[in-house]
Amino acid sequence: MSHYFGIDIGGTTIKIGLVSEGGEIGVRRELPTRKGADPTPVLQDIRMTLEEILAEEGLERADISGIGMAVPGPVTDDGILHGTVNIGWGDVALGQLAQKVIGISPVCIGNDARVAALGEAVYGAGRGANSMLMVTLGTGVGGGIIQNGQILMGESGVAGEIGHMTIDPYETESCGCGKKGCLEQYASATGVVQRAKRLLQEGDEASSLRHLPRMSAEDVWAAARGGDVLAMQVVDFAAERLGIALANAGYIVDTERIVIGGGMSRAGDFLLNKICPAYQKQVFPHCRNKEIVLAALGNDAGVLGAAALVQKGNGKHSEKVE
Amino acid sequence: MSHYFGIDIGGTTIKIGLVSEGGEIGVRRELPTRKGADPTPVLQDIRMTLEEILAEEGLERADISGIGMAVPGPVTDDGILHGTVNIGWGDVALGQLAQKVIGISPVCIGNDARVAALGEAVYGAGRGANSMLMVTLGTGVGGGIIQNGQILMGESGVAGEIGHMTIDPYETESCGCGKKGCLEQYASATGVVQRAKRLLQEGDEASSLRHLPRMSAEDVWAAARGGDVLAMQVVDFAAERLGIALANAGYIVDTERIVIGGGMSRAGDFLLNKICPAYQKQVFPHCRNKEIVLAALGNDAGVLGAAALVQKGNGKHSEKVE
Repeated sequence: MSHYFGIDIGGTTIKIGLVSEGGEIGVRRELPTRKGADPTPVLQDIRMTLEEILAEEGLERADISGIGMAVPGPVTDDGILHGTVNIGWGDVALGQLAQKVIGISPVCIGNDARVAALGEAVYGAGRGANSMLMVTLGTGVGGGIIQNGQILMGESGVAGEIGHMTIDPYETESCGCGKKGCLEQYASATGVVQRAKRLLQEGDEASSLRHLPRMSAEDVWAAARGGDVLAMQVVDFAAERLGIALANAGYIVDTERIVIGGGMSRAGDFLLNKICPAYQKQVFPHCRNKEIVLAALGNDAGVLGAAALVQKGNGKHSEKVE
Repeated sequence: MSHYFGIDIGGTTIKIGLVSEGGEIGVRRELPTRKGADPTPVLQDIRMTLEEILAEEGLERADISGIGMAVPGPVTDDGILHGTVNIGWGDVALGQLAQKVIGISPVCIGNDARVAALGEAVYGAGRGANSMLMVTLGTGVGGGIIQNGQILMGESGVAGEIGHMTIDPYETESCGCGKKGCLEQYASATGVVQRAKRLLQEGDEASSLRHLPRMSAEDVWAAARGGDVLAMQVVDFAAERLGIALANAGYIVDTERIVIGGGMSRAGDFLLNKICPAYQKQVFPHCRNKEIVLAALGNDAGVLGAAALVQKGNGKHSEKVE
């Protein structure tokens, strides 16, 4: 039976899973991410953990069909990771380096948002669809497009970056990316909280959000669900802008399914019931019945997607050495 | 040597070409398009013309490797044409019907904008690129995406419909499609003329456009090139909104090349010199050097793209009968 290591490298934590062919995570580990310009120490940390898992499970390196890695930065088709803001790495052929340090092949790498989308496509909410757009509503807004089990990479590695689609050409405030009017400014957790704070400041309307010591996007969604008028205005605005972005993406790729993930997706059906009509308002009549569903894998999407990178031959830039 | 019939069915004219394997149009014909709910009379007209061409060229039906047809309506992956506003047809499996009426197989069909994009990808300005977004700036704004010689169809047949991407969420006027704020309202020939007229009406600024009896988008571009300040405002606005749309499309598919076609593309390098900086303003720094080029095939894109449908096995829903 085939085993894969799925590794989700985040800015603070590295999640590691020993994943079966069928997408079961048999063993899980978490390590802190060492910051610095050189990825080698991080890869050595990973190597040690993988060796521990192999020893505990009575497995040899040869029993592993490959390693998949999700990384927090843009990855192009040639297997180059183009820097990670959160960790400090520059441009690096990470798959090749990892294979050398760890001694298991092949090593496949992919951008974390795209890899999570692949995880959902292969093992989660995208199962059975030929094509899928995933949108991750977290601190920022990420995304990924999967066509027939393959990540759509794009020429510059930005395909699926729906968070930086311009939605409002009149916006005066800047997005974290430097542009103005990006979806992320409206539909991310950060954007939702900022808008709530602004509305609270601008008016003196009663709101359950008014006296919260530290407001989170979850608080705003919960207040909206509870009938808070100001919170409802905030989430309606976020959903409306997201509806425009999903429709715009549809006019370009028109996937069979749209999967909504990330922290904000915990608002569940209440969120979907906001997003669906906002989307339908923006599309041709015959596109209105598109399936928009919630992500199913939660925090496991990265590890499972990383394993799926190897299974589906995505991002394979270091060959299996026999 | 293989021959194909490439047929571009428009609302008023049907263009027919006998196309060689290498993309040369050997024989050309044009017929008027008979309006009505039933496509059969139109297909009979086409059959007669094809038989004339075969007789003149000393060819048999068996010498033809297939027929490609570009049609002015949405086509889904199952080979169904979902109505044509301009001709009057409803939903029809046009390829199968055409094969029965004409007696040549296979017959491949595709949406006209997507087929023109395929023509440019295979024989024109997209040659050599793995992926291409084509945008057609005509009376409306059309588009198509080609990945590795295949039209990206999408689930509902709208993939590539960049003209109906929402660019301005505050727009109060309606697009022809019923939505508000579509790219087509700003970057089509119609949109450019409307904006010029509005600016002329709102102010009394001197402009060479002021006393034209019937203004065309070409007049506006020519006036801008000649230094007319009002005309320059109009084309800068169109280019800015197009830049947003191209960047937004890039965040979704991120093609290797962008090809600009349609009547307005006759403004040539002057147009490109407006579009490129408008695009670059909207994208991540590492995406700024994307190739944006003018279409190369002019009015032949439809006929050549239709032939390419057969050559590349696109939209093939009627099999070759031996």
